Amino acid sequence: MPEYLSTAPVKGTRDFLPAEMSVRTQVFGHLYEVLESYGFLRYDGPILEQAEVYERKSGQEIADQQLYTLTTRGGERLALRPEMTPSVARMIAGNAKSLSFPVRWYSHPNCHRYERPQRGRVREHWQINADIFGSDSANCEIEMFELIHDLMGALGASPDTFAVRVNDRNLLSSALTDVVGVTAEQLPQVFALVDRWEKTAADDLAASAAEIGLADKQFEKLTETLAAGPALLDELPAEVKENSNLVKVLSSSAASLVRFEPMIVRGLAYYTSTVFEVFDTSPQNRRALFGGGRYSDLASLFTKEQITGIGFGMGDVTLMDFLATHGLTPSPRSEVDVVVIPVDEQLADAAREVATSLRRAGLRTSTPLELRKLGKELTRADKAGAAAVVIVGQEDWAAGTVTVRGLATREQQQVALAEVPGVVSALLAPTA
Amino acid sequence: MPEYLSTAPVKGTRDFLPAEMSVRTQVFGHLYEVLESYGFLRYDGPILEQAEVYERKSGQEIADQQLYTLTTRGGERLALRPEMTPSVARMIAGNAKSLSFPVRWYSHPNCHRYERPQRGRVREHWQINADIFGSDSANCEIEMFELIHDLMGALGASPDTFAVRVNDRNLLSSALTDVVGVTAEQLPQVFALVDRWEKTAADDLAASAAEIGLADKQFEKLTETLAAGPALLDELPAEVKENSNLVKVLSSSAASLVRFEPMIVRGLAYYTSTVFEVFDTSPQNRRALFGGGRYSDLASLFTKEQITGIGFGMGDVTLMDFLATHGLTPSPRSEVDVVVIPVDEQLADAAREVATSLRRAGLRTSTPLELRKLGKELTRADKAGAAAVVIVGQEDWAAGTVTVRGLATREQQQVALAEVPGVVSALLAPTA
Repeated sequence: MPEYLSTAPVKGTRDFLPAEMSVRTQVFGHLYEVLESYGFLRYDGPILEQAEVYERKSGQEIADQQLYTLTTRGGERLALRPEMTPSVARMIAGNAKSLSFPVRWYSHPNCHRYERPQRGRVREHWQINADIFGSDSANCEIEMFELIHDLMGALGASPDTFAVRVNDRNLLSSALTDVVGVTAEQLPQVFALVDRWEKTAADDLAASAAEIGLADKQFEKLTETLAAGPALLDELPAEVKENSNLVKVLSSSAASLVRFEPMIVRGLAYYTSTVFEVFDTSPQNRRALFGGGRYSDLASLFTKEQITGIGFGMGDVTLMDFLATHGLTPSPRSEVDVVVIPVDEQLADAAREVATSLRRAGLRTSTPLELRKLGKELTRADKAGAAAVVIVGQEDWAAGTVTVRGLATREQQQVALAEVPGVVSALLAPTA
Repeated sequence: MPEYLSTAPVKGTRDFLPAEMSVRTQVFGHLYEVLESYGFLRYDGPILEQAEVYERKSGQEIADQQLYTLTTRGGERLALRPEMTPSVARMIAGNAKSLSFPVRWYSHPNCHRYERPQRGRVREHWQINADIFGSDSANCEIEMFELIHDLMGALGASPDTFAVRVNDRNLLSSALTDVVGVTAEQLPQVFALVDRWEKTAADDLAASAAEIGLADKQFEKLTETLAAGPALLDELPAEVKENSNLVKVLSSSAASLVRFEPMIVRGLAYYTSTVFEVFDTSPQNRRALFGGGRYSDLASLFTKEQITGIGFGMGDVTLMDFLATHGLTPSPRSEVDVVVIPVDEQLADAAREVATSLRRAGLRTSTPLELRKLGKELTRADKAGAAAVVIVGQEDWAAGTVTVRGLATREQQQVALAEVPGVVSALLAPTA
């Protein structure tokens, strides 16, 4: 047994110290605000769910290898949620009678997966989840794509730094069947092949296609089809296109927000038509930032009612990487606006009185807990990002005044007590 | 295996649907704001910690009966944190060199304890933790008590609905030894007895005191001492009082904020001098809402450096109960400020254009995803708490106008597109 335990967080988890937490609070605060500007309502749920939920429904890799499970003293087999979707499906199913569909919901949970440690992979990550439940309309797709652009815009991302790549699995099915000549039996395997298309060398793809039983000509046609972009639509049957929300999007005002890419599949099993991913277009970081899709029956574990919808999950690790790559990470906020410094401990009560009046005016205000020499207190206030200090001296205090000093200007002025909040606020105003 | 899984959350955990989440967001948002007005900085940490942390340091009841533990595929024995203090001690110890003490930190974690189900007990609860690390000064105590009053005030609690009951364990030790005549050997047992004093019948207390070996006279004196309040200070040695931060508080401007109660102990092992609890004074809910205290060596598991401080943890269940008891629970926020309704689907793009302009003006704006008759849309907008709807009709749109309708006033007006955000904002203004 070591004398002292390690101060490192458990492998794959992270501590968020105040400076980093301040950055995160700003980033996610912007996202909350945009989501709420569309009428999305925040919800939350427990970290623990019945293990069975994930064993029955999540991908096999999650259930077999990535799930954190435990058995309670009462004998319940529980798991730390690896994703939010089953939890929200449970909540929607359990409250369907009192909800007025469609609903827009979002949350910001932490999720656990026992990942092999590698760059950009953590075991506890935080994820924004946003979903519209209870509507099949293409208006949902259009809103999701507008929302994504506004979310990225709120983080400072210019439209050339990312692309929203979209597809409809039904269009892809039709293309594979009607254009490439894939059989119904081969279809699931070809889908899996398409899902790893962009991450796999051409030789390996060809070998896999041959293994599935595609002829060389078919592999060529497949390659061509996946690279066709919007031109592919001309080759697809009219009735397939009529039933596609994506085709409706592509003829709406939202067409300019997305890029139709027939090779986008998204691994998750529950997507049934529209799928999309937001892609970082910078040369050094070309990868999916986050993605989502439409599902036709989300809560089948919990209810016979079919609950349809569309949603996405946006993980914090890739998002913060994206912001760093593009120089968009905000600075931590200052710790306080103003520090009130008594010249000696006898004036501590007086300093607290001034601090209270500043707080009532909405200013973040601290007073020294361990009083040091004035010079040291000024340095410390400067380091905390304060815009001003208020110095409380014996004679001034007796006369009903204090000294206000701007830390940028280094100018001092004697100020009557009642005027202090106004004078300090003016020093805080931008470009003051 | 049941056909459908239960939609109830795991026992002892809670779902927070949007209406409840909105209430919580407001309540905790007020608390964050007050904490930040004092210069407290928010941090966060992982849900999972090494199980050993709690087995070595937390109370025996937690480690033996209440800890949720699991073993990972990699063989690590982990636990879901039952409290935040060991995590923050780890972080402070690991970052002590780069921190400029004293520091004010707060967080809002969820914590897990396998409690027996009973009223007001949950297994996953959310807790505000606030601490000052690295100072022994009585200024910390004073600030904590001012902070607590401001936190309660921000929730709307008037000063007569709660009391901050305070004690110093060293004063109690001295009182027990010097006034009651308790021996050093008896002291821990008498402390444990005092800790359950208020929840235990007088007969049982007398029997326990006799078991510990106190004479009847001593038990009488003990009863008298614990009820003495501030008068007890007159009976204590000067050197004990000189070293007590609490005695300093009682002679400062903060004396009026607290009530000295010699029987307050607080169960947790790591408190070493000042202890306090915030008590609900309403007749129907007389109980501690939350509490905290001062510790002289918080991070001894992780470092040989002595880290002192003072802090408290404020759980959500008792807090929300308090607000409900006193009629202080805020109403859920409206879902949107305004709904933009196209009269038919052909105008959906036009409605989205208007919605975008409203969002840019800071208004929370939705458009129907599944368009119904205007009357139904108006009812739905009203239910969502919107202050206004904007109706987009074919001829109006061609003329560059829309109809704005106030849902409270039921008055309609034709408005040119550029004026819409201004007109809707005016309808939203309080008492407009």
